[in-house]
Amino acid sequence: MSSTVSTLRRNSVAQAITEIAELIGERLSTSQAVCDQHGDDLTWNAGQPPDAVAFVQTTEEVARIVRICGHYEVPVIPFGTGTSLEGHISAPFGGVSVDTSQMNEVLAVNPQDLDCTVQAGVTRKQLNEYLRDTGLFFPIDPGADASIGGMTSTRASGTNAVRYGTMKDNVLNVTVVMPDGEIVRTARRAKKSAAGYDLTRLMVGAEGTLGVITEITLKLHGIPEAISAGVCPFPDIPSACEAVIATVQMGLPVARIELLDELQVKACNAYSDLGLAETPTLFLEFHGSDAGVAEQSEMFGAIAEEWGGGPFEWATRTEDRSKLWQARHDAFWAAVDQMPGKSASATDVCVPISRLAECVTETRKDLDETGLYGPIVGHVGDGNFHISLFCDTGDEREVAVCRAFLDRLAKRALEMDGTCTGEHGVGSGKMKYLEAEHGPGLDVMRTIKRAIDPKNIMNPGKIVTV
Amino acid sequence: MSSTVSTLRRNSVAQAITEIAELIGERLSTSQAVCDQHGDDLTWNAGQPPDAVAFVQTTEEVARIVRICGHYEVPVIPFGTGTSLEGHISAPFGGVSVDTSQMNEVLAVNPQDLDCTVQAGVTRKQLNEYLRDTGLFFPIDPGADASIGGMTSTRASGTNAVRYGTMKDNVLNVTVVMPDGEIVRTARRAKKSAAGYDLTRLMVGAEGTLGVITEITLKLHGIPEAISAGVCPFPDIPSACEAVIATVQMGLPVARIELLDELQVKACNAYSDLGLAETPTLFLEFHGSDAGVAEQSEMFGAIAEEWGGGPFEWATRTEDRSKLWQARHDAFWAAVDQMPGKSASATDVCVPISRLAECVTETRKDLDETGLYGPIVGHVGDGNFHISLFCDTGDEREVAVCRAFLDRLAKRALEMDGTCTGEHGVGSGKMKYLEAEHGPGLDVMRTIKRAIDPKNIMNPGKIVTV
Repeated sequence: MSSTVSTLRRNSVAQAITEIAELIGERLSTSQAVCDQHGDDLTWNAGQPPDAVAFVQTTEEVARIVRICGHYEVPVIPFGTGTSLEGHISAPFGGVSVDTSQMNEVLAVNPQDLDCTVQAGVTRKQLNEYLRDTGLFFPIDPGADASIGGMTSTRASGTNAVRYGTMKDNVLNVTVVMPDGEIVRTARRAKKSAAGYDLTRLMVGAEGTLGVITEITLKLHGIPEAISAGVCPFPDIPSACEAVIATVQMGLPVARIELLDELQVKACNAYSDLGLAETPTLFLEFHGSDAGVAEQSEMFGAIAEEWGGGPFEWATRTEDRSKLWQARHDAFWAAVDQMPGKSASATDVCVPISRLAECVTETRKDLDETGLYGPIVGHVGDGNFHISLFCDTGDEREVAVCRAFLDRLAKRALEMDGTCTGEHGVGSGKMKYLEAEHGPGLDVMRTIKRAIDPKNIMNPGKIVTV
Repeated sequence: MSSTVSTLRRNSVAQAITEIAELIGERLSTSQAVCDQHGDDLTWNAGQPPDAVAFVQTTEEVARIVRICGHYEVPVIPFGTGTSLEGHISAPFGGVSVDTSQMNEVLAVNPQDLDCTVQAGVTRKQLNEYLRDTGLFFPIDPGADASIGGMTSTRASGTNAVRYGTMKDNVLNVTVVMPDGEIVRTARRAKKSAAGYDLTRLMVGAEGTLGVITEITLKLHGIPEAISAGVCPFPDIPSACEAVIATVQMGLPVARIELLDELQVKACNAYSDLGLAETPTLFLEFHGSDAGVAEQSEMFGAIAEEWGGGPFEWATRTEDRSKLWQARHDAFWAAVDQMPGKSASATDVCVPISRLAECVTETRKDLDETGLYGPIVGHVGDGNFHISLFCDTGDEREVAVCRAFLDRLAKRALEMDGTCTGEHGVGSGKMKYLEAEHGPGLDVMRTIKRAIDPKNIMNPGKIVTV
């Protein structure tokens, strides 16, 4: 950037900031600490700070800020809780971070329609706390207590997507401020519609590159009458995966089916002295009636036995269930405990379930040969698995080894007709894989981005470059 | 259109047809009968014929045809089975109808992944016939034996969407020929992905206005171990709707829950001498294990009783189930039988389920006051209902009365935060309602259409004008 252009740009940013400050006063911050915190996510990739952070309170305010930023061609970066994992909130071109944490109202709950409307800053735990007395819950659980806006923007899912779907399946409509400042509600509250292009699904997973999501209408689900949870060790990865496939094929409506590999089980044993068999292990949960969850648990026990797994221990009392699932709940921190001083990053490839055993086995071999520490935890009912990859980020050689491993992992998943990201999103971190994943489809994405955001102000440098 | 422009246009079309004929020989037809048949759908709205019909056999052939049409700026209108209901296949600007009926191969079935890939011309019945020995089935059932390509393009659903979702929920990816002739596969075969914009959902329901879908990868489901079906009369519409709401709220995984209003039950009794109580009646189906469907049926019986419904008769044997559901299966033809010489058209508004009773009741009142014959059948678990509206299309006054009623119906649904079309799509018939339904969202749709199809060759005159 020449110095004249750079000066012009700085002036534009300064003018935009002045106008936004006139609009929202002290809720606009340019403090270095606040800006740094808003550019940095949970990974070991360094984020870049925005020039300012706007703590917004209404959709109309967001629209006015976007118009100001559009006028000065200043980037707008939506911010929820900062728990994303691929640099979504980083501001490589500076600009204004739009922090939605003060937009944290549940606007409506419609128990008869099993839906609710929330502001983007409401977190999933806050929502479920709010719903507690209604007998309803919002199931999507990506681990972190993320904002609903952020979860929508990254097309998040998590442990119980195998039963309840991902954000794509649970968002009825969004209110979104478009790059020109128009406020668009993408659909009505009807459960289905065939009235034109699916703008809702276009915004879900667009990572703020097509607009700022300010309100979301979500599907809710009835809290199940009964829950059973269980744990089942298997002799190896393929037998555990075969049991998963058989479970899904039989149509058992499993709510969660999680794999911990041997290394992860070892870490959990070391962390909490659990005494689990140190072998690949499935953690399951069933939702239904008392009779239903018992029937399902027993059917799974029979499937597991057929594939050499067992004993399958299961329980329905909350206390007993928590005990059985402790290893799964603590998995990440157990791994962290094994690698003091190193930084963790979580991968999330997803492959057709028929290729899962092969993909996990090859990846384990790759990790072992490369000498990297990476326990595996998988949402295996969807063919999706995570490696908690540990890296000494001060050691350039180790960073390079990790990055090369991540490239091989993405390539492996793509060769199996899978995706480089099952649930974390693209951000800036996975842009390099999209050409291989989408081919000419990437040009279609670029065409859409250019048409909807011709000035490229919405979260630039994420998903596609234009 | 001035005569010079018109001559130029005719020359372009003639040249495009010549080049396409060189490509596919006798599989290009310009016969008037063939063209007329390809412009006309199942409704009483007159369709306009294309200039030619190309009976395509491969994706590459479609790509070459689209390139030729793009070069000469000649419209391309995708055609499946011609069973659509809103003028989707009509050619108001002439052009080439791309008939996919010869692209009727099931390309792959992956039982472990519960998915399959089919060419666009495969019909849903053909697919289920093909799957018969696998223990799997494809659930979406819009009534007609539509092609999978057409069902994808119109975001179809039907009776069991309440359990299995719509086409939006059951398409993993599509192969689509873009307006520039590029062949794009919108996603991998992984069950979920967060890798960029959701091109799959953009193409589902785009009605061929953004490209020609040539292949579809679909989710499949295990054929349930047991099915129970039942019939339950209610004193009035509100009590039937309350029972539906309670059923959904309790999380009973009902596979089908259909409402026939009094007028429809009367027509069925007259048609088949069934002796049903002539009152609003719910038809239900449950899928699951033997114990599961029995438990669900009994739970529904209790709910129905609470809302004044009953007796709830149910059965599990195929023969008994067919007998119980005969009225539902024959509903349309029973209505047709009441109105010899008139043409039927099916409406499909969808509202939040909490507003369903109100919407149906007001609509019934409107029909009665207007003096139109319109029995009501609803996929009420989704808040979606049909009126089989009968019209003497030779009587201009009656056509006008019908059209005014349809406008009031759409307006009523929109005022209840519903949609003008739950499952039939927009075509040309419902374009007039989209401004009211989407507001500035319609501009976003227009922006997308212009960007992806700058020459406006893909099924022009449908969904949005540009």
